[in-house]
Amino acid sequence: MRHDRRPPLDDVTRYVRADVRALHGYTPGEQQAGFLKLNTNESAYPPSPRVFETLGALPGDAFRKYPDPHSRHLCEVAARIYGVAPEQILAGNGSDDCLTILYRTFLGPGERAACPWPSYGLYDTLAALQGSPITHADYPREPDGSVREWALPEALATTGARLTLVANPNNPSSTLDPVASLRRLCERLDGILVVDEAYIDFALGLDSGASMLPYLDAHPNLVVLRTFSKSYSLAGARLGLMFAAAPLVAMMNKVKDSYNVNALTQAVGVAALEDRAHHADGIARTLAEKAWLEQALAGLGWSWPPAFGNFLLVRVGPDARRIHEAVRARKILVRYWDTPELGHSLRITVGNRAQNQALVTALGEAA
Amino acid sequence: MRHDRRPPLDDVTRYVRADVRALHGYTPGEQQAGFLKLNTNESAYPPSPRVFETLGALPGDAFRKYPDPHSRHLCEVAARIYGVAPEQILAGNGSDDCLTILYRTFLGPGERAACPWPSYGLYDTLAALQGSPITHADYPREPDGSVREWALPEALATTGARLTLVANPNNPSSTLDPVASLRRLCERLDGILVVDEAYIDFALGLDSGASMLPYLDAHPNLVVLRTFSKSYSLAGARLGLMFAAAPLVAMMNKVKDSYNVNALTQAVGVAALEDRAHHADGIARTLAEKAWLEQALAGLGWSWPPAFGNFLLVRVGPDARRIHEAVRARKILVRYWDTPELGHSLRITVGNRAQNQALVTALGEAA
Repeated sequence: MRHDRRPPLDDVTRYVRADVRALHGYTPGEQQAGFLKLNTNESAYPPSPRVFETLGALPGDAFRKYPDPHSRHLCEVAARIYGVAPEQILAGNGSDDCLTILYRTFLGPGERAACPWPSYGLYDTLAALQGSPITHADYPREPDGSVREWALPEALATTGARLTLVANPNNPSSTLDPVASLRRLCERLDGILVVDEAYIDFALGLDSGASMLPYLDAHPNLVVLRTFSKSYSLAGARLGLMFAAAPLVAMMNKVKDSYNVNALTQAVGVAALEDRAHHADGIARTLAEKAWLEQALAGLGWSWPPAFGNFLLVRVGPDARRIHEAVRARKILVRYWDTPELGHSLRITVGNRAQNQALVTALGEAA
Repeated sequence: MRHDRRPPLDDVTRYVRADVRALHGYTPGEQQAGFLKLNTNESAYPPSPRVFETLGALPGDAFRKYPDPHSRHLCEVAARIYGVAPEQILAGNGSDDCLTILYRTFLGPGERAACPWPSYGLYDTLAALQGSPITHADYPREPDGSVREWALPEALATTGARLTLVANPNNPSSTLDPVASLRRLCERLDGILVVDEAYIDFALGLDSGASMLPYLDAHPNLVVLRTFSKSYSLAGARLGLMFAAAPLVAMMNKVKDSYNVNALTQAVGVAALEDRAHHADGIARTLAEKAWLEQALAGLGWSWPPAFGNFLLVRVGPDARRIHEAVRARKILVRYWDTPELGHSLRITVGNRAQNQALVTALGEAA
């Protein structure tokens, strides 16, 4: 018996949502074996040795049984360190998972998201997946690329978005909006403000008042995101934390996958959190290397906006693409986007000293 | 300066989608320290020793760097073992992640899903999250609870669903629909058929032709799900595999989180896949224990539909709730649902011999 409705192989994608068929998709940074990776803002330094000790001491049942669906021990440890209640924390499979949960919790079909632009490209991808329009806010800068006072709330307070996302420090610019601006935006928004603090630990080494986390109780529409992929050197383990008012966390728990953070990552996250000295040391080393790199790049005649993350958005001029390729031929990856806003810049992750020296040599020869 | 629009704390959930506010949420099986867990169908046996060796030998960069976004090595190993092309596989953060990807890829707002009922409760939760109605197909059974011939395609072929999900063996019934029925359904459906083979490895020990995987090329609208949470004893590591036509996998890659499977789980999955002898041994031990448990439960006068998973849906009668509580008081967890369809039954995971003996003793005293 044959049926006419059975689709031919080349036609089977007609079952895919039109939104998804049209979607370009988020492009993660390139990975190439044997290349020096200064393109995805990973830490240059290894995670706490306690991470490795923890893995070696895992009980056998850590694999056989389902993990704790709410990562309770991890959230308790994080609550103590970050000065919030455990009920104000949701752990995710990386902060990408947290972002997915946010979009699915707060955006019904057709409801709007907003963010400054340029920013983390995933904010756009997730809006398209959710069937939501996204406003890219006009976001004037000072001539050196730094943040203009009050520009953020002026640009974003009245977009009508249910979900507004601000990466702070921003990616790819590495600039920092002041807490006063973000608090003003919280107060003016009729919706949720997500402050994505993926890189805040590096900024806190330069400005100890840079985080929005102390203002969680003051702003019930505030969500703060943290990741273990940067200052904790755990990009491979996939762990993000989301901080929000307890009633919002309870709602988001209904949306997340039941067992979204695996048992190994929960254990590894606790080990990394508890080693405060190692964490502080990695940040200090990164900031020292950043200072070295900034001096070397200034020597090449380039500039960049005041940078607060573990990366720089370096204005190298109209030859940016060629320089990117030349450096790539030396097996060094930095990030280049061929767009009007970013086409004259390269985003460069701060590496360790040997990596930074190799990069500066390659850039010097390419420039 | 104060702004009137700032929401009070008890009102902040008004920003949450109405769908999500109304959602009951999926309830994972209970976890209690010190309890014998026979309620979530985990394996009674540990994973391959190679899993532990792999963790001990992980390179330091496994943590520091982002994982491979496409789990390529894992997919290549799985492709070899399962006889498909690597491009026909997508790895997920557990098969729950795979299911989320499926719903987001194939269901636009208002588009319908369908499944037999009762089945895996998450199918409903995900439909609600996606804003999609879901049809619970009427699914007549033989008097002993076993599958009725051709009931499946008759019940599900004409629901109008874009996404139809069949767990096979089904959960919680542990029954098996024949491949011929599923293939007929594939041919008749104008949409995607997902066959969720979470428990198929146990069924294959009883019926070597039970899987739909060999028919992937024959049915371009077929998606087959496998999990590492059951026969591979890796529920804690979160790993699922999704098999489909390569153009569908390419589309679903646009929907998944970029780095959805962490580096540790990718490595652990490879180790578990490659130890075929350990995998076969765990299944054989589970099936032997299942036979023992079935004989003991028959001795208590109870029956259940012919079971193909590592669990039994035991009809214990109107006292099911009381028996569940009595067993729980002995620190043994089995699964009970207070619903019209399931309220007279308990779902019992096959444990090891000591666990099964403890369970049978507790049940005998409670019955």
